[in-house]
Amino acid sequence: MEKNIIRTFSKNMKRLRVDAKLTQEELSFSSELHRNYISDTERGKRNISLKSVEKIAKALNVEPIEFFRDID
Amino acid sequence: MEKNIIRTFSKNMKRLRVDAKLTQEELSFSSELHRNYISDTERGKRNISLKSVEKIAKALNVEPIEFFRDID
Repeated sequence: MEKNIIRTFSKNMKRLRVDAKLTQEELSFSSELHRNYISDTERGKRNISLKSVEKIAKALNVEPIEFFRDID
Repeated sequence: MEKNIIRTFSKNMKRLRVDAKLTQEELSFSSELHRNYISDTERGKRNISLKSVEKIAKALNVEPIEFFRDID
């Protein structure tokens, strides 16, 4: 399957959230991003910006680079 | 200096563009992004989206992860 940044990001986001033992609700609260935004982003339905990447990374206590690791 | 994703991205973008021996004009053409958009992004003046990151990465023939390497 061809590499796709949205797919790579969303798969890593879910993995990192589960590793951090946070629910989407908790991630939404700590990232100050709406619950639907978090859910849509995790399902690869949003083309988010770098600043949103940074908010999610800080809320999960990881570096932004972690979202761009190969997933296959 | 506190880490900042926009700063990290823009510094890496310039480094990768110079490494690829492309001018901003050439990168603009190959990424299908406007010349001012490329220039503003490289100066850290834009909060770009993942799909734009992907366009720039493809135009520079690098993986998106390269833009998020530590710069300090």
